Amino acid sequence: MEIEYCTQCRWLLRAAWYAQEVLTTFPRDLGEVALVPGIGGVFEIRLDGETLWSRKEQKGFPELADLKRQVRDRVAPDRDLGHTDRAGQSSSESS
Amino acid sequence: MEIEYCTQCRWLLRAAWYAQEVLTTFPRDLGEVALVPGIGGVFEIRLDGETLWSRKEQKGFPELADLKRQVRDRVAPDRDLGHTDRAGQSSSESS
Repeated sequence: MEIEYCTQCRWLLRAAWYAQEVLTTFPRDLGEVALVPGIGGVFEIRLDGETLWSRKEQKGFPELADLKRQVRDRVAPDRDLGHTDRAGQSSSESS
Repeated sequence: MEIEYCTQCRWLLRAAWYAQEVLTTFPRDLGEVALVPGIGGVFEIRLDGETLWSRKEQKGFPELADLKRQVRDRVAPDRDLGHTDRAGQSSSESS
């Protein structure tokens, strides 16, 4: 997995936070999470070549629970994410 | 650059700290810094295939100023690291 972040925007800490969150949740399912310095307002999260999030397409930053579900669906589809799954459900129900 | 850390030892935060430090110092000189989950007490830092630090060889963890100097020597040899360089000099003088 790769997280490309804009250095000019000072998004390193934000990128590192996402990296630590997914590595904590999927310590044996991801080969690596790479922090990739970029410019021009980029914030992209890619997994095996697939773009899971692009700030330019989707505006803003991903909801962590949504991102974890996207990662889970690809690397550990049978995994129950516990409160992350339930949080997603109630969020969907309320919207 | 890659930082392989032992998940069993809970060294993710430690690895992420080194990653953020080198990316802050070399935001345009490193293509990426990857956090690589490992097991069995591993803590290795590699740059372009070269091992800069191996806990099994060198015991313990790298001094941050030393690590930054090693990275600088390889990716930006003309760069003055300011107090990191001076800290290294005074450390050498006193040892």
